Formats: sequence, structure tokens, C-alpha cells
Amino acid sequence: MLLLRRCHSLTRFGPLNTQRHQVTPAVASCAARLCSSSSSSSEDHRSHQRVHSLSWKHALAGLLAGTGAVLAYGLHHQHKAERADTGVQTLKKSSSLPIFSQEEVTKHRSLEDGIWVTYKGGVYDITEFVAMHPGGDKIMLAAGGALEPFWALYAVHNQEHVLEILSDYKVGELNLEDLKKQQAVKSSDPYSSDPERHPVLHINSLKPFNAEPPPEILSDSYITPSAFFFKRNHLPVPQVDPASYQLHVEGLPGGALTLSLEDLKTRFPKHTITATLQCAGNRRSEMNKVKLVKGLNWGIAAISNATWSGARLRDVLLAAGYQPDVAQWARHVQFEGLDTDVTGTTYGASVPLNKAVSEEGDVLLAYEMNGEDIPPDHGFPVRVVVPGTVGARNVKWLGKIIVSAEESSSHWQQNDYKGFSPGTDWDTVDFKSAPAIQELPIQSAITTPADSATIDRSDGTLTVKGYAWSGGGREVVRVDVSLDGGKTWQAAQLRSGEKGQAPEPSPPPGRAWAWKLWEITAPLPPDAQELEIVCKAVDNSYNMQPDTVSPIWNLRGVLSNAWHRVKVKIRKDEEEE
Amino acid sequence: MLLLRRCHSLTRFGPLNTQRHQVTPAVASCAARLCSSSSSSSEDHRSHQRVHSLSWKHALAGLLAGTGAVLAYGLHHQHKAERADTGVQTLKKSSSLPIFSQEEVTKHRSLEDGIWVTYKGGVYDITEFVAMHPGGDKIMLAAGGALEPFWALYAVHNQEHVLEILSDYKVGELNLEDLKKQQAVKSSDPYSSDPERHPVLHINSLKPFNAEPPPEILSDSYITPSAFFFKRNHLPVPQVDPASYQLHVEGLPGGALTLSLEDLKTRFPKHTITATLQCAGNRRSEMNKVKLVKGLNWGIAAISNATWSGARLRDVLLAAGYQPDVAQWARHVQFEGLDTDVTGTTYGASVPLNKAVSEEGDVLLAYEMNGEDIPPDHGFPVRVVVPGTVGARNVKWLGKIIVSAEESSSHWQQNDYKGFSPGTDWDTVDFKSAPAIQELPIQSAITTPADSATIDRSDGTLTVKGYAWSGGGREVVRVDVSLDGGKTWQAAQLRSGEKGQAPEPSPPPGRAWAWKLWEITAPLPPDAQELEIVCKAVDNSYNMQPDTVSPIWNLRGVLSNAWHRVKVKIRKDEEEE
Repeated sequence: MLLLRRCHSLTRFGPLNTQRHQVTPAVASCAARLCSSSSSSSEDHRSHQRVHSLSWKHALAGLLAGTGAVLAYGLHHQHKAERADTGVQTLKKSSSLPIFSQEEVTKHRSLEDGIWVTYKGGVYDITEFVAMHPGGDKIMLAAGGALEPFWALYAVHNQEHVLEILSDYKVGELNLEDLKKQQAVKSSDPYSSDPERHPVLHINSLKPFNAEPPPEILSDSYITPSAFFFKRNHLPVPQVDPASYQLHVEGLPGGALTLSLEDLKTRFPKHTITATLQCAGNRRSEMNKVKLVKGLNWGIAAISNATWSGARLRDVLLAAGYQPDVAQWARHVQFEGLDTDVTGTTYGASVPLNKAVSEEGDVLLAYEMNGEDIPPDHGFPVRVVVPGTVGARNVKWLGKIIVSAEESSSHWQQNDYKGFSPGTDWDTVDFKSAPAIQELPIQSAITTPADSATIDRSDGTLTVKGYAWSGGGREVVRVDVSLDGGKTWQAAQLRSGEKGQAPEPSPPPGRAWAWKLWEITAPLPPDAQELEIVCKAVDNSYNMQPDTVSPIWNLRGVLSNAWHRVKVKIRKDEEEE
Repeated sequence: MLLLRRCHSLTRFGPLNTQRHQVTPAVASCAARLCSSSSSSSEDHRSHQRVHSLSWKHALAGLLAGTGAVLAYGLHHQHKAERADTGVQTLKKSSSLPIFSQEEVTKHRSLEDGIWVTYKGGVYDITEFVAMHPGGDKIMLAAGGALEPFWALYAVHNQEHVLEILSDYKVGELNLEDLKKQQAVKSSDPYSSDPERHPVLHINSLKPFNAEPPPEILSDSYITPSAFFFKRNHLPVPQVDPASYQLHVEGLPGGALTLSLEDLKTRFPKHTITATLQCAGNRRSEMNKVKLVKGLNWGIAAISNATWSGARLRDVLLAAGYQPDVAQWARHVQFEGLDTDVTGTTYGASVPLNKAVSEEGDVLLAYEMNGEDIPPDHGFPVRVVVPGTVGARNVKWLGKIIVSAEESSSHWQQNDYKGFSPGTDWDTVDFKSAPAIQELPIQSAITTPADSATIDRSDGTLTVKGYAWSGGGREVVRVDVSLDGGKTWQAAQLRSGEKGQAPEPSPPPGRAWAWKLWEITAPLPPDAQELEIVCKAVDNSYNMQPDTVSPIWNLRGVLSNAWHRVKVKIRKDEEEE
């Protein structure tokens, strides 16, 4: 009965498994491995399910990924995010419950023995909750220990309703001695040194920090000012001392190469490109309206455009011993960030070798953004900029480059940032069946007017603005705009520079890394009281955007690039007074 | 009144201008140039309209392009194509009409002086008809002369209703002496030496020959046998003697290079690729159902897959003196075919230089198709194969290669094979505003069952097959199939080799030139009497096909890649007896 009530309350957070036997394969296999020390001979009754071959280290990285984890909570409670950061409110006290030692708690780290955790002196048996955790497997990391350090990392948990859920699972109290020991280990906030951010940003997650600017800012400026550039962090922002910064380049026949920031700036030509970066989850909120997905509820502004300067990755690889025959065995270039989770695992990703070494690939080890040092939120002192490629591969706070026959084994390369059929759900998904997202498909959106806005009839015309971009260096060649929901279309004016200034020079074929802003002023239909404005873009491979969201829906809510639709009301003349 | 009647009868052939003042800009400017010798000082009253800067030679090439020209006639009368070839049926005789000399007829070559033509001894004033000609400007080439040689080139004219239209414009008879002179110039059939073709092909145009195989043949064979490979000729098939064949390479600092077929085969390594070619107009018939377009009414089979062997264009360009610094001024590589129109102008096209010289571009000067000499219909003895690129750039019967700062100035590069907004019509189109099609977008279609087929319920399952391909070397990674019109989807099995044999090795990133065949067997919904089967493919840049045809409709009917839909009926069990 208690379980049923809890399940009911959880349906607010998305489509979760509500029966224990539906525990996901990843949880099962992880649990099997986690419990192997205490019950190595017992065979989990779900072990017939596929067991991933990921190493322990990378499984942990996945558990801590912070991508899907916190986000289902966040879907409905973003507005509470900042307030929640002030800390815990109340927890039900149940003084009649038994007292446990830490040693006893630590024995409960598997689905067989039960999953116990502690929080502020309470002991909780969350075994039944594991399969329902909106963030998936990551919860297993806390098994047998304290929740506090994890909730410090994924601060979205610090909300009243999360505590309410937790309180239902309380089974006892931690003895006073062990509680004191826990408290002696100060659980400092790993985000305490995150930089200040501009208050205009719309925050989708505070810890890690994920935020987007108001859409109208995007179309007001061809180059997005760094303060307004969307932020997508997976972990706390690392503090890197530029004087002692080292970049390690590994995997090439000549042996490892280590470069200082000064080396990067002085030993290699400085190369500058203008490139748009877009999060794979941009416009995920539109997929959530079809059916809830796991992931940050991005609006249309998880995309921005900047100039980037730095050494070309190609030049650095050549300096490190790259020669064409390396391509006979190597296929990928892996990147590791200096941002780490509680286990010390870094953020990681990889790109195809041919993109990395091509003269036309324009991959940079960038130390400047918009003409200044890259700000902390964007990767100070060095980030990879892989133009035309999904944001997730543009690794920030770059610490290591590895030339390899294999893709990065990181969670984000292997088990995230991939697209699936709309018919695939979390019970049937096989992450090995889909390629890691690299180039992104054609995209566009209307930045103004905003959805649900009311428009003055005024001079009888309406101006619509937006952005359009495509991955892989494919240039946007046309944006069609409709004021009647897609029945009729007009081509918009495209712009590839600041308004009133000369456009940026036309890029060579296949190297159009930057977006185009677009604008159209059209007569308002005389009697219309409402309009459905739609935009769709075309790139120079004549790729078009799909018409609707539902057929491209996928369980991670990535690649949301259907026509963008905005409904506006038109104020009658008499209302204008 | 006569004009109105004629206009009425013409509406059968598509949306034409019916008033003289609506003559298209291209016709106006061409007419202005055509009449310049006889009335050079008179300013055409439509000369305010945009005048193209094309040279005379290339304007002629455009006029003779044979792409849009004959095809609007053909849309409704393909079934008559072969019969019509047997010749003219009857022409109204009007013995009371005046007799004209050829000299008098020749004076009428402009819209001011009137456009006169002759046909089998009759004289016709077709001035009013020029703007209504389904094939556009090309009609101006015949001004002041005989129609016969043009109708021999574009044989679709040899149909009864075309003669009916012509007869309405009769203004006189040619004098007997000039008629005898005309007849002395034997208008031989330029297509008389075209090769034999397999009768299974579905013919969309006989002269020039354009035909596609039955769709189910495509999915039966990963490599399409050459006889069934779709044929898309713009002009008669030239007779080329392989012993005296010469390929000229021009535009590079080292001066011109001339190669024999033997040179190509012996001086350069032989390189083999498997590549799918697709006509820009594949699936045009679906656009015609939305609103009539100009162009051959292709079904879903203007696409095929073959192996191609030959010298790499890169190697030939290097032998001809190409060096990286050429890229500082050159941007394109132009190709000229040996197929010519009545003015001697050849078919032509170009591709970006970086595609041509890239090691990863795999552009071939192919002399073998599927392991044998390239057949005459496919470019014997040498054609360019530009994998990942629209068929139109894969120039057949290759005669000349020119490295240049400019694109090919040919009609097919400049004023055809481009995509436009659905709101653009022939009055507003500006061909300079859109890029020439190079890479094609993601495509897929259902080859079996056929549309309107009736399916046996038999074992309660249905097998659906098809093809999927994307341009630019982007690999198809998924095909979704729906049996309920797009409400729910399942991923199909993909295949990249002959059935039952080992698949072709996985291509390096960006070099997936060949299609994938796909297949899915799904349970028939128990009570369904009718199904709408839909397919859509996804490439590894996660480009998706648009849902519907109407929003991607364009006046030339190219780039038709919306979801493919097939409706089938399910035979009830009792009907099976």
C-alpha cells in the first residue's frame, strides 16, 4: 500500500517503472557488480538481462553523469531551484524507529540485501525506489552511505518534495557516534567556486549549471556575447591555474607530448573561426510536450554563436607525431576535461580522426572566445571547439587528448547523446545500436515574437526573427516562414553578420560553421485574430526540417528540430487605446 | 476569342501564362537578344525585366536543355510516347491561306516582329503561344525556321494534341520551292543510334531516353544490374570510339593534358567504389500530385546502386599539375560531356574543387560499371562518378575537365537542378538565388508492397522492403516503418550487401556512398482491412525526412524526399479461396 502511494506520487516526475521486476538492465547489472563483494556467489535473478562491458570506472562515470539524473525532478520544479539551494526544510521525525550503526547500514548495498542510505541522521531503505529514481542508475552509488555528498553535487535534490519521498522510506536512525563522524567529514559544496552568472539567464539546472539566454537576445546579436552564451556544464567548474596548466597529447607513435598554455599560444599559429555551438537537447521542451523525456528542459536557446581563437588541433597532432599512416589504425580523437565527479572521473568525449586532422575540419584548441580569454563557464583556459559538431564533443577545461582506435568510453559518448526511434523506450533501448551524435541536423527557430504574445496591428505588418543553423559545415541557404500554420510560405532575409555591418565573408564549401540570423516583415492578414507562425530552414545539402515533433520524439529528447511554431494573438485596434 | 479557346485547351498541360504581357523574363530577354540583328535599336517594352548575363552559347544550351521542355507535354501523355514516334497524323489544311517565302518567314524571329515557324509546309505565327510553351524559352530557337529538327530532338512533340494546338496558329503555306529545299535537308533522327534497352524499364521519356526499373527490382539486388540501373539522358547517346577517345584536362598551371582511355587505365591506379546515384527528380510524381511541376514524372526508382572502377580524379588532376596553391583561386571542377544538342553545345556540370581533390572524396573517372565496360547509356567509355552527389553532376561520356574559379556556366548548373521555396513560381523564380544541388538529402522509399496492392492475410505478418540513402557520404543509420500512417514506428533491419552474403565492409566516416536496403516483417493488425505503410530514414548526421510533400514542393519538382507512403488492402480470409 505504501509502495502504491509512493508510486502514485512519483508519476509526477515522468514515466517511471513502478514494479520491482521492471528494474532497468543497467541498474540490474550495476547492482550485480556493486554487490559482488558481499555476495559474490549469489546470482541476481535479473542477470539474464544484458550486462554492459563497461569497466567499473566508466560505469561509475555513467552513474554520476548528471545528465538524466537530476533532471526529471527539475522538469516541474525549476522555479524552485535557486530557493532550494538554501538547504533542507524539514524531515519527519519518527523517534520510535530503531537505531543502526554505520557498519549495519554499509551492509545494505545490493538489491538482495536492500539498499540503505543515510541522510542527516536518518536511515532509509530505498530498495523499492531504485527502479523509480528519475535519474536512473546513479542512485546506486550512494548505497550503504550518506546522501549528502551526492545531493551537494546534484543539487536539484534539495527540494521539499524530494524529502517527502525520502521520508516514506525511513527505517531507523543512525547512532549518535557515527552521525558525529559523518558530520566531521565536511561535505563542502563542490559548486562553491562556480563563477557568477548573468541574472538574465534562464536556469534549467543550478548544480551543475545549465542555463540559456532569452531567445530575443540571440537574434539581436550575430555574435552572442559570452555572458549570454548558453551554459551547459555536466559537473562543477574546475579551478585551473593558467600558469601550471598542462595539456597532454597521447596515443601517437612519438610518445606523449605535454604542452603549457604558453606553448599552445606561441608554438602554433593562432587560428580564428566563427562557430555556432548547439546542445543536443536544444528545444527538448517541445518533445516533453509530446511525452516526457529525461533531460534538461531546454527551450529554444541552447544554441549560441561566438568567435573562437586558438591552435588548430591538426597542428598540435602533427607536432605530437601524427602522420597519415596513423589513420591506418586510429579512428578517433578522445578528449578528457579537467572537470571531475566525486570518483575523480573526468568528462570525456571523442570525434572522428578525419575531422580532427583535416585541414578543412577547423578543429581548435581554443584559448579565446569573442576576443578574450575563454570565461570559466566555457572552458578556461582551453576548450576544444569542433565546429559543426554537437556541443557535447566540444570538451571544456581540456586536460588530455588521446588518439585511439576507439571512441571515448565515457558515459556521454557511449550511453548518452544518441538518437533512437520514437518506438524505443527505456526497457528496449540498446545504446550500442545507435551512433554517437556528431554532426547535428538542420535547425531553426523563431526568437521573436514569443509564443502566446499579443501583437499590435499598428502598421499592419508583422516582423518575425530567428536563427537557423546546420551541422557539418552545411550552410543554411533558405528559411521559409509561414503565418498560417504551414499552408503558405515565404522566404526570409538571411544575415551572416551584425545588422547594418558587412556580412562575414562567404565560407568555403563544407565550412559554414556559423548560423544565419533571419528576418521577415509580412503584412498581417486583415481579419486575423490569431496567427500560427512557423519556420523551417534548408541547408546547402537541401536537408529540410521534419514537420512535426512526435515522429522524431526519442527517450532522451535530443535532436529536436521539427518546424518551430509560435502562436500569437493580434490585438484589435480598439484594444490599443 | 481564338486566343481564349487556345488558352483553355492549354490548361490541360499545367499552369501556364495565358496573357501576352505575362511573358516570362527569360523569354523576354532571350527574345530581345534574338531580335537584335533585325531591330537592334528598338527597345523591347519588357526590357525592364531582369536580363540574364549568360552568353549566347549558353543561352542556347539552356533553350535546348530538354529538361523542362518536353516534359509538361509528357506528364499526361507518356503512354503515347512510343506510338507518337511513328510520326505525324494529320494537319488541318487551309488552302485559302496566303503563300509565304522562307525569306519572309525568317524575318519573324522576335516578339515585336512576331514569331513564325514552319512545319511540313505550313507557316505558323506562334507569337501568342511563346509564353504558354510548357518547355519555356527553348521554343525561341525555332523562330523563323522549321520545327522538324527540334521535334526530332524532343520527340514528345509528336503527339496529336500538340499538332492540334499548332494548327490553331496557322497563317499560311510555305512556297513549294522553299519547301523542297527544306525537305532536301534530311532531318535524320539523332536518337537512331541510341542503344537497345531492356523492355522491363518504365519509360518516362523516349527521346532523350529516361527510364526507371520496377521498384521491386531495386530491393532484390544490393548491386543494381546495369541493364536495370535507371537511365537519365539529356541528349542522344553519343557514339564514342574507345581507340580514339581523348579526355582533355584544362585550367591548371601546367597547361592542358590530354589522356587516352589507355592512359586512364594504365597511368593511374584503378580504384573501385560502390556508390548509389540518384536523380534530383526521383519521386517527382509525388510532387505532381500536390501541384503540377515541370519535369519527368519519375516514380520512386530514379535511384540505383553499382560498383564503379576507374582512375581517381584527384590523381588525374595531380598529374595535370594540380597543387594545393591552386585552391587559392580555383573553386570548381567543370565537366563537359560528349553528348551535344543541335547547336553543338555539350552537356555540362561542375562540382566543388575540394570534393574533386580530396582523398576522401572518392571522385572517379570511371571506365567500369559492375565489373564491365560502362554501357553506352551510362557514359561509355568514361563517366565521372561523384559519390554522394546528385546524378546530374556525374557527367557521362566525359570529354573535358576544367579547373576553374567559376561553376559550370551550363544550363543544368545555372538554371536547373536547384531547389526553391514552395511559394516560388515561374514568375518569381530567380535561379541565382539558390545553390546548385550537389549533396542530396536523406531519402528512403518502400519498394514492396506496391501502392494499392492487395495483401493476403496468410500467416498474419507483412513484410515491407525498401531502400534508404543519404548524400555527402552520410551513412543511413536507421529506417523507421509505420503500418498505421505514422502514429507508431518500428526500426527496420538494414542491409549493406547481397542477401545471405557478408555485408560490404563498414565505410570510413563521411564515405558511405552506397545505399542500405531494409526490410521488416511485422504482425498484421488483426482486424485491419487497409494499411497505410510509411517509411522514413535517418542518416548519421541525424538528418530526418520531412513528413509531407506539400511544404517541400518546388516548381521543378526536385528533392522530393518526404516520408514515403503506400496504401494496401488486406484480403479477407474468405476471399483467398
